[in-house]
Amino acid sequence: MEKNFVVGVDVGGQTSKLGIVDSNGILVASDVIRSDTYGTDAAAFIKALAEAIKALIKKADKEGQIRGIGVGAPNGNHLDGTIAFAPNLAWAANGVVEFKKLLTAALNLPVDITNDANAAAVGEMEYGNAKGMKNFIMITLGTGVGSGIVIDGKIVYGHDGFAGELGHTRAVRENGRLCGCGLSGCLEAYCSAKAVERTAREWLELSDEDSLLRKIEKIDAKDVFVAAEAGDKLAKRVFDFTGTMLGRSLADFIAFSAPEAIVLFGGLTNSRKYLEGPIVKAMNDNVLPIWKNKVKLLFSKFSGSEAAIIGASALAWHIQD
Amino acid sequence: MEKNFVVGVDVGGQTSKLGIVDSNGILVASDVIRSDTYGTDAAAFIKALAEAIKALIKKADKEGQIRGIGVGAPNGNHLDGTIAFAPNLAWAANGVVEFKKLLTAALNLPVDITNDANAAAVGEMEYGNAKGMKNFIMITLGTGVGSGIVIDGKIVYGHDGFAGELGHTRAVRENGRLCGCGLSGCLEAYCSAKAVERTAREWLELSDEDSLLRKIEKIDAKDVFVAAEAGDKLAKRVFDFTGTMLGRSLADFIAFSAPEAIVLFGGLTNSRKYLEGPIVKAMNDNVLPIWKNKVKLLFSKFSGSEAAIIGASALAWHIQD
Repeated sequence: MEKNFVVGVDVGGQTSKLGIVDSNGILVASDVIRSDTYGTDAAAFIKALAEAIKALIKKADKEGQIRGIGVGAPNGNHLDGTIAFAPNLAWAANGVVEFKKLLTAALNLPVDITNDANAAAVGEMEYGNAKGMKNFIMITLGTGVGSGIVIDGKIVYGHDGFAGELGHTRAVRENGRLCGCGLSGCLEAYCSAKAVERTAREWLELSDEDSLLRKIEKIDAKDVFVAAEAGDKLAKRVFDFTGTMLGRSLADFIAFSAPEAIVLFGGLTNSRKYLEGPIVKAMNDNVLPIWKNKVKLLFSKFSGSEAAIIGASALAWHIQD
Repeated sequence: MEKNFVVGVDVGGQTSKLGIVDSNGILVASDVIRSDTYGTDAAAFIKALAEAIKALIKKADKEGQIRGIGVGAPNGNHLDGTIAFAPNLAWAANGVVEFKKLLTAALNLPVDITNDANAAAVGEMEYGNAKGMKNFIMITLGTGVGSGIVIDGKIVYGHDGFAGELGHTRAVRENGRLCGCGLSGCLEAYCSAKAVERTAREWLELSDEDSLLRKIEKIDAKDVFVAAEAGDKLAKRVFDFTGTMLGRSLADFIAFSAPEAIVLFGGLTNSRKYLEGPIVKAMNDNVLPIWKNKVKLLFSKFSGSEAAIIGASALAWHIQD
């Protein structure tokens, strides 16, 4: 029987999403399981995940038609197949989990694993707006800022499997905001969804400027978007600032790998209408003349909770075992 | 007859150096020709270069034993074989020269071309301190700051052939020094040999501090080294500053490609004893915990005028035509 389907798994702190995807990137069946009810017992989680995958394949009548399993997970390491020291996963927070080995054994199917941002990049290259591109950089703008770098058609893993941590390059060098990673001035501290909230809060505290956001007790990035839509000037400036900070850093990334495009992905791209202009301007203001107005800024084809499953699934088309 | 030798050419603004190199990276014969006596006539320069290469091969009795020619040149583009808009080469300053095509035709031997920093990286991987490494970044510290990035054993050329311009990433984001490229705050404006001179001059002007450098009319980087060797405090602080600025930027480069090592090359590495400590400290202070004290800082095996010939020659072992 031809194996024309793959399974994608998006491992998250609270839940893990799984789905069966066809060669066009269409999700044909999906399910969700809890990730946070296994304490520190990684084997128990992997067993539950394997059972859920088997059940989904059976329910969708795709037995014998699955090419392999692609997994996107925090700190997922393609080179050694592990998830190691991932703070948001209780069963992988304090050690190294042989995730690929255990899941392969449980399912008797080939498994590949990488981090969420790399999975998103592979998905975009396989089914999305980077289809056919050999050189691009995916930036994921969610709770944090992640990245997946594609050079010559392949994800860059580096010497240790951890390449592509562009969210933890310096956006501000002097007196920068403290980042969750312990460093200061990281891009993630200025351009994630959480950073948008932080910028809004800081600016509200620093001035008496009138703003719709003053009425909101716990501001999130969506509130800032809604306020901007209602004409709120401070909210619009928050996006101007966020886009400018991102564009400046993108210019440095271009000098590294001379990509054909930068692709943005993740929840914050819902505010594209306010971010795109400032990003493009700052990016082009900070690159060498050879790249001015030459590198495309694209937005992912995928959004919402399906995106991560579809991205992870794309890994499975390329497993060489 | 076995082809166990390659030719390396280092094209510079005033002179071009050429040499025959064996498989161990040993220079067995060399010559120098002028680059600046042909006006805007690129064909005339290439003809003269081809004649010099033929004469050198004959003189060294290596006819029929040459695998190919590797050329390192400012703005040399591996992907399309051209030298384009290179300000320091009169015959390539205002247009695109089909260098590879013309030299191949003149010699009837395979030719590859890239920029100086990429050539240095290939040389280091082939014969030098990065031998056997699949992932490293070469930083050249000369008049400017260049870079050659190796990922999975291959030079990164990017979408357009111009990848690896790390000298023009932002070392300082606000009110940075104007760089020769037109941007502000570039790494090159802080960590090249010229930048060392600039730092020394600026600091002498800004204070009345006693320094041996005050006696020198036109300070160059070597003067700063000599002063430091004589115990001059200001000169030592210039190297501290230069090394710290470089180390901070290296940390960002590590987040991109997770290299096994960073290799430094070029004239400024003669001041290694003053630069190494500050570079290593700043680099490790600015990386994520996963990379702290894990990425090696190495210095090139090669120095002096032979280094660029040997680096360029290494390209010729890998020409696939």
